[in-house]
Amino acid sequence: MVTTSSFVDGKPQASLCLSDRGLNYGHGVFETMRLCAGQLPLWTYHCQRLGAGAQKLGIALDLPRLETYLQQALEAFPADGMVKLLLTAGVGPRGYRQQGQSPSYVLQYFPPVLPATTALAVVRLQLCEYALPHNAQLAGIKHLNRLDQVLAAAQLDTGFDGLMLDVEGNVIEALSSNIFLFDGQSWLTPELTLCGVAGVMRRLLCEDIIPATGQQVAIKSIDLASLINATEVFVCNSVRGIQPVSELAGRAHWLTESSQPGAVETKKVIDQLAQAYPCFAA
Amino acid sequence: MVTTSSFVDGKPQASLCLSDRGLNYGHGVFETMRLCAGQLPLWTYHCQRLGAGAQKLGIALDLPRLETYLQQALEAFPADGMVKLLLTAGVGPRGYRQQGQSPSYVLQYFPPVLPATTALAVVRLQLCEYALPHNAQLAGIKHLNRLDQVLAAAQLDTGFDGLMLDVEGNVIEALSSNIFLFDGQSWLTPELTLCGVAGVMRRLLCEDIIPATGQQVAIKSIDLASLINATEVFVCNSVRGIQPVSELAGRAHWLTESSQPGAVETKKVIDQLAQAYPCFAA
Repeated sequence: MVTTSSFVDGKPQASLCLSDRGLNYGHGVFETMRLCAGQLPLWTYHCQRLGAGAQKLGIALDLPRLETYLQQALEAFPADGMVKLLLTAGVGPRGYRQQGQSPSYVLQYFPPVLPATTALAVVRLQLCEYALPHNAQLAGIKHLNRLDQVLAAAQLDTGFDGLMLDVEGNVIEALSSNIFLFDGQSWLTPELTLCGVAGVMRRLLCEDIIPATGQQVAIKSIDLASLINATEVFVCNSVRGIQPVSELAGRAHWLTESSQPGAVETKKVIDQLAQAYPCFAA
Repeated sequence: MVTTSSFVDGKPQASLCLSDRGLNYGHGVFETMRLCAGQLPLWTYHCQRLGAGAQKLGIALDLPRLETYLQQALEAFPADGMVKLLLTAGVGPRGYRQQGQSPSYVLQYFPPVLPATTALAVVRLQLCEYALPHNAQLAGIKHLNRLDQVLAAAQLDTGFDGLMLDVEGNVIEALSSNIFLFDGQSWLTPELTLCGVAGVMRRLLCEDIIPATGQQVAIKSIDLASLINATEVFVCNSVRGIQPVSELAGRAHWLTESSQPGAVETKKVIDQLAQAYPCFAA
């Protein structure tokens, strides 16, 4: 057991019923959230994405109920670390057709995995051979069908995060983070209409943080050559914040030992994020 | 709870650890098997498919261990019904990368859902709007990422099974069964190299049962027009056996009340199956 504490539907519990649709079909969504001084700083964003995903999957999220469970869990959990929230379609009879059952609300605490200085920890990327298939109906949602990521991760060397392309060779995301590149003039991040997970931190950066640095950010289709030609690259998620990318193994180096801290534009975004959300400070 | 009895890793247990990769990522495979007089008549086929799927997903199936657990469960379960076997990548730390953990072996009993005369119960199909995306690396495997089927099922009217096409409009399968059509000369069933689940009953019919009726069967790409123009259509799986299809709503009628039992070639396959495996007799 890696969890130190967990709740299912408001009850302390470390397991889920075998008939839960989350287990049998991956019929559910999840959020992995930074827990900081007993608070979830990006809760509003997580909650909106969770609600949108639940709606697409036909899961009747009861938000007041979830917030009651969450409050209870936050009082029981340590003050700092991560909270993983799973919302599944609940326990039901066998068969793909849903039959109006109540969702399951699962909350788990995880200790911090990285030191407080994570924000400037540099990430090395390796290109995954596994290509993300297109599926417009599931794209963007953080659902429980994650075999694409599992199979891609299995191909990686130790010490690398994976860069995932789609079946047409477009840059999509890293294994568990979104990717941004600076092309010398502005920031770009891949559009995620056909595959990929639309991260909460990605949204925050696009809507608030990057504009506040005085730079522009565009969401668009990005090919591998554009990534390789970028002057700066970072990955981000709502647990680790922003992490500069030093290289794409065998293909590109954006940061060398001598150039650090050379990622000038990245540093501006990191500083702006730290100002708005101190828990993501380096 | 719909299960009357279940085992996890050989222990009577109705729940699975929250940290299991089956729940978090759908990292697992499953088999739903007909249980008949305390036996699983198609176990050899199920076992081979399970092993092939586990290998593709990097799950270290320990077959002697599974067979021990299975024997124990069969002694505890009622003699007739269904057994659902889940093999997951097991309990592990958070993160897509697998770290050598042992699989989880889950066995659940379900009572028979249909009367003994199921083999001739007629199925009505409705075309699913939801199209199956292509993914050559996961095609054919009966894995736990089943949101495609869940979303397709949500669109169906009561009383219908769903006919699923792929994103290119090819006929692939029904919601939880494979499909065969007779074109007037021989049997055809869709190839499943880019999506779909390669059913155990489909394999048995292709390799043994249909050839034994004196007919030929081809596995090939099939478009919707070919299906509509078929003279007979049936669906099959390893729980319900063979079920003739009467219609594709609004598009085709293969059986009318007056023509029953008019599916001459289908009847030959059903009879041949019943001879080889009496539990699938009408």
